[in-house]
Amino acid sequence: MKIAIGIEYHGAYFQGWQSQPNAAGVQDAIERAIALVGGEAVRLHAAGRTDTGVHALMQVAHFETSVTRPLTAWVRGTNAHLPSWVRVLWAVQVDDAFHARFSARSRSYQYVLYNHPVAPASQHGRVGWYHRPLSIAPMQQAASVLVGQHDFSAFRASECQAKTPVRTMHRAQITQQGPYLVFSFEANAFLQHQIRNMVGALVYVGQGKLSADAFAALLQQQDRRLSPPTFMPDGLYFTGVQYDAVWQLPVSHARWA
Amino acid sequence: MKIAIGIEYHGAYFQGWQSQPNAAGVQDAIERAIALVGGEAVRLHAAGRTDTGVHALMQVAHFETSVTRPLTAWVRGTNAHLPSWVRVLWAVQVDDAFHARFSARSRSYQYVLYNHPVAPASQHGRVGWYHRPLSIAPMQQAASVLVGQHDFSAFRASECQAKTPVRTMHRAQITQQGPYLVFSFEANAFLQHQIRNMVGALVYVGQGKLSADAFAALLQQQDRRLSPPTFMPDGLYFTGVQYDAVWQLPVSHARWA
Repeated sequence: MKIAIGIEYHGAYFQGWQSQPNAAGVQDAIERAIALVGGEAVRLHAAGRTDTGVHALMQVAHFETSVTRPLTAWVRGTNAHLPSWVRVLWAVQVDDAFHARFSARSRSYQYVLYNHPVAPASQHGRVGWYHRPLSIAPMQQAASVLVGQHDFSAFRASECQAKTPVRTMHRAQITQQGPYLVFSFEANAFLQHQIRNMVGALVYVGQGKLSADAFAALLQQQDRRLSPPTFMPDGLYFTGVQYDAVWQLPVSHARWA
Repeated sequence: MKIAIGIEYHGAYFQGWQSQPNAAGVQDAIERAIALVGGEAVRLHAAGRTDTGVHALMQVAHFETSVTRPLTAWVRGTNAHLPSWVRVLWAVQVDDAFHARFSARSRSYQYVLYNHPVAPASQHGRVGWYHRPLSIAPMQQAASVLVGQHDFSAFRASECQAKTPVRTMHRAQITQQGPYLVFSFEANAFLQHQIRNMVGALVYVGQGKLSADAFAALLQQQDRRLSPPTFMPDGLYFTGVQYDAVWQLPVSHARWA
């Protein structure tokens, strides 16, 4: 049978989602814990592969198993074998045709930027930081051009292995919450480092180093070498996955707080 | 001359505020950094001594120095010598009669409790946790009896070195913010472990293990041995210090977010 799980983790304690030879991936920790509950090795398939330092408030993954356990065992039993910076939030049995990655209609991320003269101390590792005041209005204007179907080569890491740089962005918003700028993105899928590269360029817009028009031109030029540097991973949160209602998954979205 | 500084830190990276033989106190880190800026050893005096694992959004301390540096040097220079989980927020020259501890009229703390079936992962080390639903109304009713001048022996650690267990509580409030309960306390001063002991007892009230009346009786009985256990330090934040306007300090309060 196939089990889907919702997962939350603090990215600073892992070398990204993906399984690593040194077992430092989130995937390694959870596969090991599930194997201890079910008594057999499992392979997790996740909706999105987050980089080192990137957090998840709601990652979704699935695995196949030949053993029958109460769904609460896949949650509480697994959590009992995990370090406290990663938690299984829920588990449900899903149709055999479901695939956490291929059934996903869209992914959501938030980037939280602390805009303050002094670097974040109590929020160390949990937020990005820029020390000079940023002008939000031009950043919001620039972000709006990202919505729609585009070739996102301008914001694609050179080592990105996606077959195509074309993605459909459903949402690209920036809101202010006290000293924080919260960027919210939703797209059918994202290229490697795409959000950190977009945030890096939007911070240039907020500084006045790049106009909103120049940002739009950057997107159209489709050349990563012309773009500002990748922003730090600390403020990036994988916040949810959209699936068709037919799969009957639990709430698969969360929000930064 | 005398310099006062505002300080923020993530408590999980230190063995409390106070200087330790192994130099693992917040005080050790900042005294060392200031000495590198000023070229002479200094001694910090803080408004409050936080325990291991307890955070500060706004600690206030002062030191005496014989050297003259621009105030920005005491901020940026010191920060350049500090790990990123502790930051000096501001520095001002103060009157020689000012004392960060003895001039303080009151201290403010917040305790942030994540009330959710699954333990916090992305907020690991930053919030307390209770897994079953809590009833807030009786907790708020119980907390209200803490306001005023009381002998707080019921919530005093056995190793507490204060001369008297009598404190004046100006504020004891509980608010709900999504899945978080935020406890806000302000008092002229606090006994050792007082807030974590009060929170532990208030969580018993929220579970129905202790009525609001029994909580009030607990306070009156002045016997720590009758009280519920000390709550974990993770969710405790030192949020500010109240000084008389005559000392002309900058903003010395912050809020959890």
